[in-house]
Amino acid sequence: MQQTENVTSEGKHEEKHFMATDLIRDIVIGMSDGLTVPFALAAGLSGSVANASLVVIAGMAEIAAGSIAMGLGGYLAARTDQEHYESELKREWQEVKELPHREREEVADILREWQLPEETVNSAVESISKDPERWVDFMMKYELGLEKPEPRRARNSSLTIGLSYIIGGIIPLFPYMIIEHAQTALVTSVIVTLIALFVFGYVKGKFTGSKPLKSAWQTALVGGAAAGIAFFIAKLIS
Amino acid sequence: MQQTENVTSEGKHEEKHFMATDLIRDIVIGMSDGLTVPFALAAGLSGSVANASLVVIAGMAEIAAGSIAMGLGGYLAARTDQEHYESELKREWQEVKELPHREREEVADILREWQLPEETVNSAVESISKDPERWVDFMMKYELGLEKPEPRRARNSSLTIGLSYIIGGIIPLFPYMIIEHAQTALVTSVIVTLIALFVFGYVKGKFTGSKPLKSAWQTALVGGAAAGIAFFIAKLIS
Repeated sequence: MQQTENVTSEGKHEEKHFMATDLIRDIVIGMSDGLTVPFALAAGLSGSVANASLVVIAGMAEIAAGSIAMGLGGYLAARTDQEHYESELKREWQEVKELPHREREEVADILREWQLPEETVNSAVESISKDPERWVDFMMKYELGLEKPEPRRARNSSLTIGLSYIIGGIIPLFPYMIIEHAQTALVTSVIVTLIALFVFGYVKGKFTGSKPLKSAWQTALVGGAAAGIAFFIAKLIS
Repeated sequence: MQQTENVTSEGKHEEKHFMATDLIRDIVIGMSDGLTVPFALAAGLSGSVANASLVVIAGMAEIAAGSIAMGLGGYLAARTDQEHYESELKREWQEVKELPHREREEVADILREWQLPEETVNSAVESISKDPERWVDFMMKYELGLEKPEPRRARNSSLTIGLSYIIGGIIPLFPYMIIEHAQTALVTSVIVTLIALFVFGYVKGKFTGSKPLKSAWQTALVGGAAAGIAFFIAKLIS
């Protein structure tokens, strides 16, 4: 019964307050950078290199580097979060066993922040600390703000981010693959990628609950600014 | 008095459980990628280009692109978080006013997860919902898991991430600036950057509470893997 009530309450909230799923968040992370950085690098190089195939080589090297840095880096970061969670969990268990008085005081402090009457605080502390499992759970969630990480999350997340980066990165490079002259390919790449960034930003806004049009403009702006500045820096030093 | 108790309790925890400050987290985010991606791009290009100055141009374009994508992208993401918080806050205020019965039930659901006796739940719901400000605050924190974003955070964060990316990116490019032949510069860049990644990973581990040596190896591994794969992909398509 308890269980059902919670599920219902959560279901209700999923409609009311939008929260992006982990999958969508990972796609957004990978594709935002994948569309932006290889695009800007290619634009930058076009400012000082005539041969489009050199731009493609640099672009592909960048996509490889970026997707591995983000994918493998993300994988290791998620694993570190998991280890962090487990070490804090161990510590809380130890504290609950060795310093129960102080831990009980900490539960009370958290509840007192809500200005509950002292009587209610005491009764709540009593029932929370009766079950060590629940007690530790309470401390992890409300004292440390840590949620239990999902198991296969680390691997899936890294794959999704890496692949999204690669897919995003291929789009701005494609014109350089079929047009020989870098400066000519640049024009096509700018048009194609700005449209892609705009559409991606719009969809991202839809999925993450922000205003789609604003998200579209902002995403195109970041890509455009990065490409523009990369272009001028490359021109400057070449 | 209440205030003092909370502060003391929080102070105690800052010693016990390590939590990285926002500044350090931003430096780590920017420098991880800054040391890795320009390094790997330069290594990749060295596999198919003899002239080191071309590697420098591509590397600088990448640093410009990456630092803007991360910095400006991070700035806009933080602003979006802030707007998300404010829109959810508005919605909670509305719900507390228009559907107080349902919102009171939601507070009760959260408290029931801790298996508090129904009597305690009722008394806690009563005192939380007496003050709308506290009530909304409770829903934001414990129902939606949203913390109030700091004001100047968005701007500072973007600057720190962008600058850290630039500083990190200059290190692997430096050998290409002083050595004319790309393949020769590559050897120096690999040695210098792997040492830098190792040291950075070690310090990062110290600051973020994970095992320093493990963090050092992992950071060097991500950079090395990215550079190695970028090198072979560039060789393959050139």
